[in-house]
Amino acid sequence: MTIFGAIEAGGTKFVCAVGSSSGGSLRSATIPTRDPDSTFADVAAFFSAARDLGSIAGLGIASFGPVRVNPASPQYGRILATPKPGWEGTDMIARARAFLDVPIGLDTDVNAAALAELAAIGAGLQHLAYVTVGTGIGVGLVSAGRSVHGIGHPEAGHIPVRRHAAHGDFAGLCPFHGDCLEGLAAGPAVAAAWNVTPSHIPEEHPFWEVEASYLAQLCASLFLTTGPERIVLGGGVMKQERLLPLIRGHTRELLGGYVDALRSIEDVERAIVPPACAEPSGLVGAFLLAERSTRSETRGG
Amino acid sequence: MTIFGAIEAGGTKFVCAVGSSSGGSLRSATIPTRDPDSTFADVAAFFSAARDLGSIAGLGIASFGPVRVNPASPQYGRILATPKPGWEGTDMIARARAFLDVPIGLDTDVNAAALAELAAIGAGLQHLAYVTVGTGIGVGLVSAGRSVHGIGHPEAGHIPVRRHAAHGDFAGLCPFHGDCLEGLAAGPAVAAAWNVTPSHIPEEHPFWEVEASYLAQLCASLFLTTGPERIVLGGGVMKQERLLPLIRGHTRELLGGYVDALRSIEDVERAIVPPACAEPSGLVGAFLLAERSTRSETRGG
Repeated sequence: MTIFGAIEAGGTKFVCAVGSSSGGSLRSATIPTRDPDSTFADVAAFFSAARDLGSIAGLGIASFGPVRVNPASPQYGRILATPKPGWEGTDMIARARAFLDVPIGLDTDVNAAALAELAAIGAGLQHLAYVTVGTGIGVGLVSAGRSVHGIGHPEAGHIPVRRHAAHGDFAGLCPFHGDCLEGLAAGPAVAAAWNVTPSHIPEEHPFWEVEASYLAQLCASLFLTTGPERIVLGGGVMKQERLLPLIRGHTRELLGGYVDALRSIEDVERAIVPPACAEPSGLVGAFLLAERSTRSETRGG
Repeated sequence: MTIFGAIEAGGTKFVCAVGSSSGGSLRSATIPTRDPDSTFADVAAFFSAARDLGSIAGLGIASFGPVRVNPASPQYGRILATPKPGWEGTDMIARARAFLDVPIGLDTDVNAAALAELAAIGAGLQHLAYVTVGTGIGVGLVSAGRSVHGIGHPEAGHIPVRRHAAHGDFAGLCPFHGDCLEGLAAGPAVAAAWNVTPSHIPEEHPFWEVEASYLAQLCASLFLTTGPERIVLGGGVMKQERLLPLIRGHTRELLGGYVDALRSIEDVERAIVPPACAEPSGLVGAFLLAERSTRSETRGG
């Protein structure tokens, strides 16, 4: 069996694994994210120790952003402007290749998660959005089976949204935009606006409606822009199961019957779903990136 | 020289032409849109009379929407729910093939326009959005060189937007969404809200700031979602040249320096542009669809 390496590189932790997208992880480790040198030293140690599992054919990196994802760019693989101390300019591919000289595939963590969710759902689907609502709001997009890259990579967590009246004059927490979607609806914004954490909010609290109205605006905008067949909602905030049906309801209301494939509540229930991957979607996506990187190098692509 | 047929099928007029995307139209005609029978009778007469120009190798249809654009669907080429009398369910491809039995390519008018603008700009660009602001707001998207189709086709003219305070309690005109972008910012909404037409609005009127703030939200959301390298703004309302610099300024402000390729005003001026095609972009796009349809049939695709 061919085995691959996977790194889900996040702002708080790096999850490293050896295995494959179909077979899952044979071994994995979670490494706290510190400065690049310390973090990658632990990553290298994990993959060095994992040599007893066999030869690793390729490596996939599902990275936090912003990161240069265009393989034609001289900055390919580099972390761009970020508030994470020490990470700006870090070359994720060079760091990995220093300890594992194999074909390497790289994308954003959320684009990788979108690829993984598309593969997990199967059924001939080609268009999917993966949204994570946690310390930030990240959006990965797959269109016609390929992850979407443009002038950068998707950053739809930062779209402007209509403020909910019950949110009062809460200014929002995004250092770039104040009250963009992430500034109003990510975990830290929820804590700051209501002085609570999502896991401890009573049912009658206005949070639920406010949060659902914001995330529904993202869902409606995505359906109206790239038209995903599925929007997968993951991340820490989405662990509150009361949110999903509220978001579906608000999304259907916002679409107003305009998109013919999303008229009934059953249509919307089928289209907005929780993650289907058995392991974290970003990690499974990293295995997919690894597998694709070895295929494209064989083809000379 | 191989010649092609092109139909830009709009809600008020059908523009028909014979020629090619590179050589332009050798002959064209504008036919008022009435019921499908009367309209297509005139279209057929145009192409019949155009036989003296030579044999037509393929036909492209750049159609108003909503229209089924997925070639795998049994409804491929059919107009979906529309307020235009008599058009719902019309099979645009069958109607055209009845008088011109050649390979036929079909897409939305705005996706076709996006393909045409991408070709006109050249320079190795792969990601572009075409926006028309007229009686409606239409958005066409090209990502990685291909027009974007998902659960339907892009309908980003209908995204929710933040209302401008100066717009008061104007309810918006969209029959589906009320105050979505199109409901607030398309030509008829401008006329209804301010009781003026864009070509007769004085410089100091609040319209300019309000309109620019809405269209900038679309631009920012597009940059943050599919990341077009260029957003081309066309249509009747955009003929007011004062709008473009205002939209650029508001878009830059909304992005807040977050997208590294769009930090300076020069970046944004390069990225948000007027149409570059010499003929209407949708018509040029229809020629491109015609040319692609003959290539794909030759390949058996």
